[in-house]
Amino acid sequence: MEHRFQPALYHRTFGSHEPVLHLGSGDRLITTTADALGQDATGERVTEPGNPLTGPFYIDGAEPRDTLAVSLERIEPNRDHGFTRSSIASNAVDPDYVPELPERTLVRWDVDTEGRTATLQIPGATPPQIELPLAPMLGCIGVAPDRGQAISTATSGPYGGNMDYRGFVTGVTAYLPVFVPGALLHVGDGHAVQGDGEIVGTGVEISMDVELTVNVISGKPIGWPRGETDEDIFTTGNARPLDQALQHATTEMLRWLLQDYGFDAAGANHLMGQAVRYEVGNVFDPAYTMVCKMPKRHLPPPTRTARPAAGT
Amino acid sequence: MEHRFQPALYHRTFGSHEPVLHLGSGDRLITTTADALGQDATGERVTEPGNPLTGPFYIDGAEPRDTLAVSLERIEPNRDHGFTRSSIASNAVDPDYVPELPERTLVRWDVDTEGRTATLQIPGATPPQIELPLAPMLGCIGVAPDRGQAISTATSGPYGGNMDYRGFVTGVTAYLPVFVPGALLHVGDGHAVQGDGEIVGTGVEISMDVELTVNVISGKPIGWPRGETDEDIFTTGNARPLDQALQHATTEMLRWLLQDYGFDAAGANHLMGQAVRYEVGNVFDPAYTMVCKMPKRHLPPPTRTARPAAGT
Amino acid sequence: MEHRFQPALYHRTFGSHEPVLHLGSGDRLITTTADALGQDATGERVTEPGNPLTGPFYIDGAEPRDTLAVSLERIEPNRDHGFTRSSIASNAVDPDYVPELPERTLVRWDVDTEGRTATLQIPGATPPQIELPLAPMLGCIGVAPDRGQAISTATSGPYGGNMDYRGFVTGVTAYLPVFVPGALLHVGDGHAVQGDGEIVGTGVEISMDVELTVNVISGKPIGWPRGETDEDIFTTGNARPLDQALQHATTEMLRWLLQDYGFDAAGANHLMGQAVRYEVGNVFDPAYTMVCKMPKRHLPPPTRTARPAAGT
Amino acid sequence: MEHRFQPALYHRTFGSHEPVLHLGSGDRLITTTADALGQDATGERVTEPGNPLTGPFYIDGAEPRDTLAVSLERIEPNRDHGFTRSSIASNAVDPDYVPELPERTLVRWDVDTEGRTATLQIPGATPPQIELPLAPMLGCIGVAPDRGQAISTATSGPYGGNMDYRGFVTGVTAYLPVFVPGALLHVGDGHAVQGDGEIVGTGVEISMDVELTVNVISGKPIGWPRGETDEDIFTTGNARPLDQALQHATTEMLRWLLQDYGFDAAGANHLMGQAVRYEVGNVFDPAYTMVCKMPKRHLPPPTRTARPAAGT
Repeated sequence: MEHRFQPALYHRTFGSHEPVLHLGSGDRLITTTADALGQDATGERVTEPGNPLTGPFYIDGAEPRDTLAVSLERIEPNRDHGFTRSSIASNAVDPDYVPELPERTLVRWDVDTEGRTATLQIPGATPPQIELPLAPMLGCIGVAPDRGQAISTATSGPYGGNMDYRGFVTGVTAYLPVFVPGALLHVGDGHAVQGDGEIVGTGVEISMDVELTVNVISGKPIGWPRGETDEDIFTTGNARPLDQALQHATTEMLRWLLQDYGFDAAGANHLMGQAVRYEVGNVFDPAYTMVCKMPKRHLPPPTRTARPAAGT
Repeated sequence: MEHRFQPALYHRTFGSHEPVLHLGSGDRLITTTADALGQDATGERVTEPGNPLTGPFYIDGAEPRDTLAVSLERIEPNRDHGFTRSSIASNAVDPDYVPELPERTLVRWDVDTEGRTATLQIPGATPPQIELPLAPMLGCIGVAPDRGQAISTATSGPYGGNMDYRGFVTGVTAYLPVFVPGALLHVGDGHAVQGDGEIVGTGVEISMDVELTVNVISGKPIGWPRGETDEDIFTTGNARPLDQALQHATTEMLRWLLQDYGFDAAGANHLMGQAVRYEVGNVFDPAYTMVCKMPKRHLPPPTRTARPAAGT
Repeated sequence: MEHRFQPALYHRTFGSHEPVLHLGSGDRLITTTADALGQDATGERVTEPGNPLTGPFYIDGAEPRDTLAVSLERIEPNRDHGFTRSSIASNAVDPDYVPELPERTLVRWDVDTEGRTATLQIPGATPPQIELPLAPMLGCIGVAPDRGQAISTATSGPYGGNMDYRGFVTGVTAYLPVFVPGALLHVGDGHAVQGDGEIVGTGVEISMDVELTVNVISGKPIGWPRGETDEDIFTTGNARPLDQALQHATTEMLRWLLQDYGFDAAGANHLMGQAVRYEVGNVFDPAYTMVCKMPKRHLPPPTRTARPAAGT
Repeated sequence: MEHRFQPALYHRTFGSHEPVLHLGSGDRLITTTADALGQDATGERVTEPGNPLTGPFYIDGAEPRDTLAVSLERIEPNRDHGFTRSSIASNAVDPDYVPELPERTLVRWDVDTEGRTATLQIPGATPPQIELPLAPMLGCIGVAPDRGQAISTATSGPYGGNMDYRGFVTGVTAYLPVFVPGALLHVGDGHAVQGDGEIVGTGVEISMDVELTVNVISGKPIGWPRGETDEDIFTTGNARPLDQALQHATTEMLRWLLQDYGFDAAGANHLMGQAVRYEVGNVFDPAYTMVCKMPKRHLPPPTRTARPAAGT
């Protein structure tokens, strides 16, 4: 079943808020997200800034210790401009270098969804223009945390959240642990393009058209958000320091190989040792995000998956 | 000028040891390295284990505050097998998961330099065999540190060292800061293939044929080892935690864009924010290694480089 | 005015929950807290385990950017036993040492409030008994966080929370930043005694009699929880890694010396450099706590304080 | 036997340098150290700045895997002034606060060894004078590291080094692991007083009279430097981040309780959980130092010690 939903209110926490819509497992959702500043497709401010989210969506049948699979089918900017901050965050450079960082302001980028570029004019700067290929992604994707918590969209955790990982793009299936009945999916904080680490504290912040399909995988608990593309599977860890985020992501990948790919501990350790890849999600938010990736070409077919087969 | 050098003794520190050979700027060196266990092309133990190094090579004319460019022209296994450890390091998984790691032993991989594969048979394990494409790299590359120090080849620092970054491969030019007259280049610790992070504490440890050309870039100090491929430039930071390694690498990339690519602070911050890539060198050694990468396609031509033009 | 309050329900998040009682600035509160396991003075489980809190108390007149002063006048165990975990947390020892830690169980301590001791019998262990002097403290003290958040009592932040600092004892005035109207004070998680770092994940967990007086300091925002005894002032930082917690606490102390003690930057930096003391709150919870202390004997009288003068 | 030694040359690395003197186990040494700037009792620069060390002293009979006990009998400034830096290090405050730190200069303190004070005049600052009680300590104490290393006196490790812990004072016995024959003891970097963390990057840097007695404890390997006073035993961990330093120190204390105090794992874990104390050595040097302390009043008599009994 397909649902179209136009948000009227937004949340700035991942929490057990009143659901805006119920979706069945297998249903498809067509919606939009405002940008991090609270501006929608019209460019008007429709809500407070600070990563306002669309949702939460109640997924019928999702229960604690289930997994929610969210197939991102279309993550696409729905207007012609976005915004970035102008200076690298003070925590991403050597402490002694901080006084040399430029002033922190907001600048506007032109986003050309036809030409697939994001372009910044910097009059008087060198170079005077930066043009990058579009790579639209969702900075925030997650469910309601456990224990009745409501946690700021500035940060992330086992429930997902503001991971700012440039891998949450069209074509990816995200897997999220379920902590409350209905899971309560929230999405937002789209970026037209973003560098690794989100080191200026923003991607090219923009409102998005979002199309996704949800599936409940019953009785299969996971520890951290996971993801899958045609080429790779990946796990995320959200914590500080980056070392701890990496520990979470690595441990979650080990568990995945053991649970769903038939590996024993020896095989999983050997393969990961020589074939694992890491990617940095963000090193800006209160919790950093590290991603642990494994190419599918090194893996046997999984025993369980909610992802549509590639090419079908 | 081309030099052939066959090592007879090895060092287990990066330090101001007696040079084994003098090279002129622009000279080419053809040599070999023993593996991390002290075994050479014959598979025999020729020196103590623990990342024994070939060198140091005195580069005529290199002075403190110069930069040494080392173009890696051939990094290629010179025997048919290597070794890995069998379990992920306790510091790379969640602390509570440590008791679930398998026993730490050494296993042998078959290395097929014709077929370009490294293969592990694990009788009784699942899967019983792991086969990966060869991707030969140098785990250790560096110069003598400052202040008369001699530092274990287990770790790394501004002088390079045991960075265990899978990007030091054939075709890369490494740039190293010079701290002592002659720079004193050391190389070793070859891996036939290695996962990001070297999370089992080894790649596929193997002896190597090494061919490289050295060039002195006078009067150009750099802060951390850098590198260049046909597609990218990159900087490394070596420290714990990974956050600090990332700070070093990020700061070094900022400096590079400003010094050699004509960027001002505004331009460099904006470009890096939306286009930077990070890669994890190692998260096993006493100092971790983080790599900050920038695709050349986003950069104007540099004002200075020691790298031969691509395709010439 | 003095209020007596006996809790009937408890919260496991610091959040904007319905207030259980209104207090005026200057009012005194006499109440009790359940232990971390949800057991009260009778030793019966009265609520779910996981640091259930008493409150929140609405402080009339407290507004965002005010500071709430909470003078702890009596923190005293109200029963004869408590509980601890039996093994040091895996994150507080070297990763390779984790497999050598003993099994994680709960053990019971006898608490003698007359003799002022906490005593553990460990039949068969060496030594067979551990007896320590009582040093009763509150593990959890805090207010509702900003942005409508509700955050687990497992962790801490700028709003206070589960800091597990053994310095929150009878005689201390705690200062908390106010984020919401009424501040919404929560208290709980008493420990009869606790080592630095709460490295086994518990102190001697016990229900408490709590007596405190609240005062609103208007128009004086602070960044992190602070405290004051007759001898010292202190600031707390709550984050991981411990380095970042220390940065927060150090910065907050600098701000305090500048704001309230008449120091300029030169004076504050010089004094802190040679006279500062650090104490570790906890290294167990998701956010660690570091405390920065300055002896009052090195300070001039403050321009502002809500603490009753010593000896009056 | 008592030796008097006046240094003529100094080293800026802990390493296997030519010994300046041989000492027998049980011998007493009376010597001096230059300050961190290379200035001796006369206030003249006698060697290069950067923590120049006196020694190394070869202890006859000390072999790898022994422990060297160094009883510090007199650590006392031998001139009337010292130096400090004027600003807190950029890594000890919040990254965003760095631009607010004062300029980094060197200032002179008056040191009155009769009146037992260190006093700074800061004309024009508020307050205009800071006076602190003397608390003379050694910033650097250590032996030659393993593997032929020579490591800068800027940092520290298992061999000791520049720990900048204000607990290395008159009356303390330090225990150091021995890595090379003769141990090769180095001392230096005296501070007339120092705050926790050495957060300005210096204590009150001063030349010292040093009197100490060495004892070899054969066949007893330790993992990290330890210490003992009349009231406490303590262990040190040297690493970044502070979390890892704490892990080392905690693990070393566990080992000590098990090896020398007759504890089993259950007893050691329980006691440490409720009675351990941590102190911050430094958070300035490349390796931070965390100290884990246990009051002797909680311990049975040790089975082995090299410390003279208190009061004898």
